[in-house]
Amino acid sequence: MRIGDLHTEAGGVINDVTIAYRRWGEFRGDPDGMNNLVLIEHALTGDTNVADWWCDLLGPGRALDTDAWCIVCTNVIGGCQGSTGPASEHPDGGRWGSRFPAISIRDQVTAEKQFLDALGVSRIHAVLGGSMGGARTLEWAMMYPDKVNAVCVIAVSARASAWQIGIQSAQISAIERDPAWQGGDFYDTGASPDAGLAAARRIAHLTYRGEQELDERFGAARQDGENPLGTFRDPAQRFAVESYLQYHGRKLVERFDAGSYVTLTEALNRHNIGRGRGGLNKALAACTVPTMIVGVDTDILYPYHQQEHLSRNVGELMGIARISSPVGHDAFLAEFRQMDRILRRFFVLSVLDEDAQEDDGYLI
Amino acid sequence: MRIGDLHTEAGGVINDVTIAYRRWGEFRGDPDGMNNLVLIEHALTGDTNVADWWCDLLGPGRALDTDAWCIVCTNVIGGCQGSTGPASEHPDGGRWGSRFPAISIRDQVTAEKQFLDALGVSRIHAVLGGSMGGARTLEWAMMYPDKVNAVCVIAVSARASAWQIGIQSAQISAIERDPAWQGGDFYDTGASPDAGLAAARRIAHLTYRGEQELDERFGAARQDGENPLGTFRDPAQRFAVESYLQYHGRKLVERFDAGSYVTLTEALNRHNIGRGRGGLNKALAACTVPTMIVGVDTDILYPYHQQEHLSRNVGELMGIARISSPVGHDAFLAEFRQMDRILRRFFVLSVLDEDAQEDDGYLI
Repeated sequence: MRIGDLHTEAGGVINDVTIAYRRWGEFRGDPDGMNNLVLIEHALTGDTNVADWWCDLLGPGRALDTDAWCIVCTNVIGGCQGSTGPASEHPDGGRWGSRFPAISIRDQVTAEKQFLDALGVSRIHAVLGGSMGGARTLEWAMMYPDKVNAVCVIAVSARASAWQIGIQSAQISAIERDPAWQGGDFYDTGASPDAGLAAARRIAHLTYRGEQELDERFGAARQDGENPLGTFRDPAQRFAVESYLQYHGRKLVERFDAGSYVTLTEALNRHNIGRGRGGLNKALAACTVPTMIVGVDTDILYPYHQQEHLSRNVGELMGIARISSPVGHDAFLAEFRQMDRILRRFFVLSVLDEDAQEDDGYLI
Repeated sequence: MRIGDLHTEAGGVINDVTIAYRRWGEFRGDPDGMNNLVLIEHALTGDTNVADWWCDLLGPGRALDTDAWCIVCTNVIGGCQGSTGPASEHPDGGRWGSRFPAISIRDQVTAEKQFLDALGVSRIHAVLGGSMGGARTLEWAMMYPDKVNAVCVIAVSARASAWQIGIQSAQISAIERDPAWQGGDFYDTGASPDAGLAAARRIAHLTYRGEQELDERFGAARQDGENPLGTFRDPAQRFAVESYLQYHGRKLVERFDAGSYVTLTEALNRHNIGRGRGGLNKALAACTVPTMIVGVDTDILYPYHQQEHLSRNVGELMGIARISSPVGHDAFLAEFRQMDRILRRFFVLSVLDEDAQEDDGYLI
C-alpha cells in the first residue's frame, strides 16, 4: 500500500512510502466508528506474518479470533519485509542507504496511521504487540487516543533505559565497524556487513533469552564433534551455545537487511513517550485509552519493573499480566498458553469497556 | 617472581613463567603450617594493587587488616600487569601471541601454587576474591583443600553458564573480528585491535553494571553538546550512556592487552569445577574447606541463584551473604560498607573454625 510521503519527527522526509501488510478475517463495522479492526505490531526483526510467529494464537476460535476480528499486521517503516526501508529504491535512483532518515517509534506509528487513512479507515478497535511492537502500541495510545478503543502493551517500557541504549548501541556499533558497511551505502558494492549483523544478533539474542533457559538447554556442553577445551584457543572449536548463537546470527543475515537493523535499533534508542509531552508520567496519565500491560518475570531487556511503572502511571489501566517463564524477553513469542489467556482476557475487557459498548452488534 | 614452567590442563607448556605480586603486612607463623598469609584474587582486568581497587577495605584496622594479616595479591597468569601473558617475550624471541596456550582457571591456580612454593610457603590461611577472582578462589578450595583454612568466594558460579559463555564469546569475537588482531600476533605489526577490545569492554561493562543504577545516572540523557535525535543517524551524536561506555572502552585499551583479554575470557568460558570430578555437586560436596559465599542481588552476569547453588552444595559452608545494591555484578568492588562487614565476619569465622584453632597465637 502506497501511503505518500512520511515527514519524520526529526525533520526528514521519506518519499512515496510503501507499507506492506497482511490481513485475516473480514472487516465489519464503521470505518470511522466502531468496527472490528485489530492492528498487530511486530517486533524488531518480525514481519507481517502473524500466522507464523504467533502461530498458535491466530485463527478461527483462537485468542486472535479471525472469525470475530479483522486482523491486520503491517511491516514497520524502515524494515525490509515489504515496507520502505534503507534497502528500498530511492526515487532519485540507487538504494536509500545513508539517505534514509533516522526514524522514531512515533514515525513508525505515523506511517501506520497514514496506511489506515489510505485504506479508508480512521478508527480501529485495538492495537497490540510486544517489544518494539509494544513501543508502537504504546505510542498509538499516546498519539491517537480517540482512534483506538483499547491497547495491549507487551514487554516494553515507557522509554529506552540507559542499559537498553547501551546494549543496542553496541549492536549498531558492531555493524558500523564492519568494513563492508560503508557508512550504510553497501548495497551496490557487492559486499554486505554480514559479520557485523551476525555479531549484533548474537548480542541481541542474549538479551532476548533467559539465562536459565539457555543453561538448561546448553550448559557448558561442547558442540558435537568439536572441542572448545583444546591446548590452544580455536574459534572453530565451540561450546554448543556458541554454535547456537552463530546459527541465529546466520539465520538473521539470510532474512534481514543490515540497514534496517541499524535504523530500527536506532528507533528503539529514541523510544521515549515523555519527549515533548512533559515527561513520562504526565504523558501516561494523560492517556485515556484502556490499556493492558504485559511483562515477563525473567526479562532482562525490559525488566518487569518497567511494566509495573507503566501500570502505576497509565491513565486507564485494564490490568497487568505477568508471564512466568524461564525464556526471558522472548516469552511473549514462546509461552503461547499464557499469551492465549492474556489476549482472550484483553479482548473480553476491550468490549466490556464502556466506550466500546456503544455498538456491540458485531463483536464477540 | 619466576616460578618455572607451567604445564596447562589442556597439555600446553608456558616456559619460565613470571608471576608479579604485591604484599602488605608482615608474614607470621609457619610457612608449612598455621600462618597469617591471605591471598587476594583479582578480577578479569584487575591487578595486584588491592590498595587501589579495594581501597577502603585494605589497611591497618580495616577488614583486610594489614596489622593482622600478611596480604598477597598475584597478577594472574595470562594477564598483562607483570605476570607472563600473550604480550610477554617468548623464550624463542618475539611475543607469545598465538603461541600462548589456552589456560583454565585451574591453570591460574596452579601458577599461584607454584608461586607460593617459590616463596617457600606451602600453606595459607585464606583465599578470597570476586568474579574471575572468585573462580580462582573456588578452585583453590577444590585443588588444594589441605593447604588453605578458609575461602571467601564472591560473585561467581560453579561453572560458566551458557549465557556467560555466550556473552563472553561475543566479546572474544569482537576482538577476533578486528583486522588488527592478526590471529593474536599483532604485537610487532605497529597496530593493535583497539576498536575490538573497546567493543568487548562495552559489552562486558553492561554485564557488570545494573540497569537501574545506569538508568539513574544516565537515563536517556544526551551527551553534553551532542544531539542523538537528529534527522539522520550520526555515531558522533551520542546519548550520555554511549559516551560513558566508550570512555570505559578507551580506558581499558590504555591499560590492557587484547591478547590477555582473549586469554582470560577464554579461561572464564572453561571455568567448570565439575570437570573430571564427577560433576559440580560431587566436586562441591567433596570439598572440606570452610567456605563463605557472597553474591549480589542485581547481578545479571552471575545471578544470585548461582551463589545459592554453591551454598546448598559446598561441603563446609561458613555462610552466604547477599549484597543488596543497584550496582549489579560490580557491587563487590563498589559497596565497600557491605563488603567490610562481610569480610570482617569471614575473618572472625575463619579463626573460630576448629581447624584454624590449633594455633592462634598470632591471629587477630
